[in-house]
Amino acid sequence: MNLHRKPIPVTQAIQRVMDSSHVLETEIIDLEEADNRILAEDIVAAHAIPPFDKSPYDGFAIRAEDTCHASKENPVTFKVIEEIGAGHRASRPINSGEAVRIMTGAEIPEAANCVAMFEICQSFEQDGQAYMTIKRTMENDQNIIKRASETAEGTLLTEKGTLVNPGVKALLATFGYANVEVYKKPVVGVFATGTELLDIDQPLEPGKIRNSNAYMVLSQLKRSGAEAIYFGKLADDFESSYKAITEALKEVDVLITTGGVSVGDYDLMPLIYEKLNAEVLFNKIAMRPGSVTTAARIDGQMLFGLSGNPSACYVGFELYAYPYIQKLLKKGSPYHSVVDAYLGSDFGKPNPFTRFIRGFLSYEGGNVVVYPAGMDKSAVVTSLARTNVLIVLKSGTRGYRKGEQVQAVLLEEDRGAKHFELKGK
Amino acid sequence: MNLHRKPIPVTQAIQRVMDSSHVLETEIIDLEEADNRILAEDIVAAHAIPPFDKSPYDGFAIRAEDTCHASKENPVTFKVIEEIGAGHRASRPINSGEAVRIMTGAEIPEAANCVAMFEICQSFEQDGQAYMTIKRTMENDQNIIKRASETAEGTLLTEKGTLVNPGVKALLATFGYANVEVYKKPVVGVFATGTELLDIDQPLEPGKIRNSNAYMVLSQLKRSGAEAIYFGKLADDFESSYKAITEALKEVDVLITTGGVSVGDYDLMPLIYEKLNAEVLFNKIAMRPGSVTTAARIDGQMLFGLSGNPSACYVGFELYAYPYIQKLLKKGSPYHSVVDAYLGSDFGKPNPFTRFIRGFLSYEGGNVVVYPAGMDKSAVVTSLARTNVLIVLKSGTRGYRKGEQVQAVLLEEDRGAKHFELKGK
Repeated sequence: MNLHRKPIPVTQAIQRVMDSSHVLETEIIDLEEADNRILAEDIVAAHAIPPFDKSPYDGFAIRAEDTCHASKENPVTFKVIEEIGAGHRASRPINSGEAVRIMTGAEIPEAANCVAMFEICQSFEQDGQAYMTIKRTMENDQNIIKRASETAEGTLLTEKGTLVNPGVKALLATFGYANVEVYKKPVVGVFATGTELLDIDQPLEPGKIRNSNAYMVLSQLKRSGAEAIYFGKLADDFESSYKAITEALKEVDVLITTGGVSVGDYDLMPLIYEKLNAEVLFNKIAMRPGSVTTAARIDGQMLFGLSGNPSACYVGFELYAYPYIQKLLKKGSPYHSVVDAYLGSDFGKPNPFTRFIRGFLSYEGGNVVVYPAGMDKSAVVTSLARTNVLIVLKSGTRGYRKGEQVQAVLLEEDRGAKHFELKGK
Repeated sequence: MNLHRKPIPVTQAIQRVMDSSHVLETEIIDLEEADNRILAEDIVAAHAIPPFDKSPYDGFAIRAEDTCHASKENPVTFKVIEEIGAGHRASRPINSGEAVRIMTGAEIPEAANCVAMFEICQSFEQDGQAYMTIKRTMENDQNIIKRASETAEGTLLTEKGTLVNPGVKALLATFGYANVEVYKKPVVGVFATGTELLDIDQPLEPGKIRNSNAYMVLSQLKRSGAEAIYFGKLADDFESSYKAITEALKEVDVLITTGGVSVGDYDLMPLIYEKLNAEVLFNKIAMRPGSVTTAARIDGQMLFGLSGNPSACYVGFELYAYPYIQKLLKKGSPYHSVVDAYLGSDFGKPNPFTRFIRGFLSYEGGNVVVYPAGMDKSAVVTSLARTNVLIVLKSGTRGYRKGEQVQAVLLEEDRGAKHFELKGK
């Protein structure tokens, strides 16, 4: 086995993964199921919004010209011929001197051209007939939301590649997309490798540890929008591991293994890639943790060999597997956002490699501040719980000081970092 | 009907909702299903991490004192008595002059107290027996990850109220939580009201519009972690609406209606709250959009009457229903984060009310910048698609200028705002 792998830079490793292509089909699903899926069709306004002239207020629809002589001294009286709520239409066009009592959202009756709000009108009844008077003039189109004033028919509203969030869902419902075309989710298989691994429901045994990486990666996969399949654990035995991986490859678009990618006597993944005739894209990256993260390709299938070390496994997934999955999902922008941020505390250690430090984000007075999530020994699983960013610390001979500008990779929504409190009253 | 409702400030309205209490039970679920659920138990380290002294490298486990005279001139030779991979244990303690070939993650054999990495050792074989020589001294505990060095037994790792993300899931797996206690999801029912509403699979008809609010709210509910039930549409008819709402209340913790909360002739919700004997917490808020957002309580159940206007409906949900749902879920911090940010463009209109402008977030050189998502007429559903923040513009007599500091309510993960590109090499 080659003990002297040549490390490549992080950006080059990402590029090699992203240059690989594999096309998934689309599928038509119910709108109800479309949350967090990626649109496979452009959404075009099939009709104008609003589709008709409508009233923004409760009031009386009239002809503005009928009010041209109205004043305090000279109130003008209209005959109220009918009443319409939203969803109903006037039965006939209005004539001069007539009014229709109209509710918010209802369609403006034919021949009416303005709406006088209740507040400026006086209603009364006489001999069973409703009337109203108005003491001021109205203008043509006053208090009318014109047809197509928000969206013209044919407008491109959102492009394929868009993630469906509540706003996009409202848009789809508005234009009658009871079904919607989305990209299929890539099917991603997961194996944990290592004889030392116990199942989570097994009691601890001497020399062994529980399998946490597989559960973590399955959770990362869910967060990434993929369809995950857990294939279980593999002991450090070549033949049985090779067979299980070969079988799994029949079912997946991507296969992720944790562990076994280093250069120890029991690191079987390099031998398995070789026997599978997979093209190894890289097996050493100039970064910490996760330097042995490996990617390999067999035709359209991608294999990610993540480290068995929890932190390295986590980082390797987010930097390489995550954007590849987004690419398969056809998401407009497949990468995690990378933002400039200020370091919230000193990070003393000099280091010869680019480091990805688990951390969390804070918003302070308009600035983006990031804090390391704790001691960063690469096997510490506990600090992963707090992580929502990876702080990027470039290689260098000195440490980093609080307040220095760094970059941060955003991993998830910032949830409830600060209580809801509006300044001032 | 009272046309003159008295508006209360936003923070007071939030407070009235959050002061209401209703306790949900907990449930035990499989770890596999725990993503995005809220822990109902503190997670305490049931054992130390690591649970035993282990090797961080591939090498030879020896007694440091055996190397005290080792040097280039005086290499010391060890008899390699066995080989252990991770998950295996040495069969017996080592004696002076003995070494165990050990792999990363394996337990340090008894009586060994350091690990000499392969790189500094010379292996050879003689008469079928493996040996290794070393030309330098080693120290006690060198290259050993000590038991409990990461986490001591009994450490509180994460508290109840924590959202399960991939890191928390890894933690749970590490400590053998095959099942985990979480808070039950609140069951939230949704009705859309209004005779003008068409189903999403119906063709457009004169005077009618499609029901988009219900789908939007259902999607907001999913995003908030609630269990949503859609009860359908209600026409503007008191008796049938009252009956449907009474029936629905038998099944839910929270009931959300869209529309019908204003003071028009067809706004039935105020009458329904009255007949239900519900305590109205507020029905007018000093904000735009969504000033008629209503909250009412019947015993432990909360009813939110959101506006029928799409933007007002969206804002009303996020400001009032979202934190209440998080409270029911027992999330440690129930509120959306509110952050200071710089306004990315002018917002000219002066306005007498606090406004919540839909917008999106951008990270620019360490600063948090927010941009209005488009024209902000309150019925414009299309601009909701881009929204990931609500920009808070306090009431005032003048407009706001680009670069001014404002507050922003964060609604969702920032997804792929910028391509992955690490500055420098």
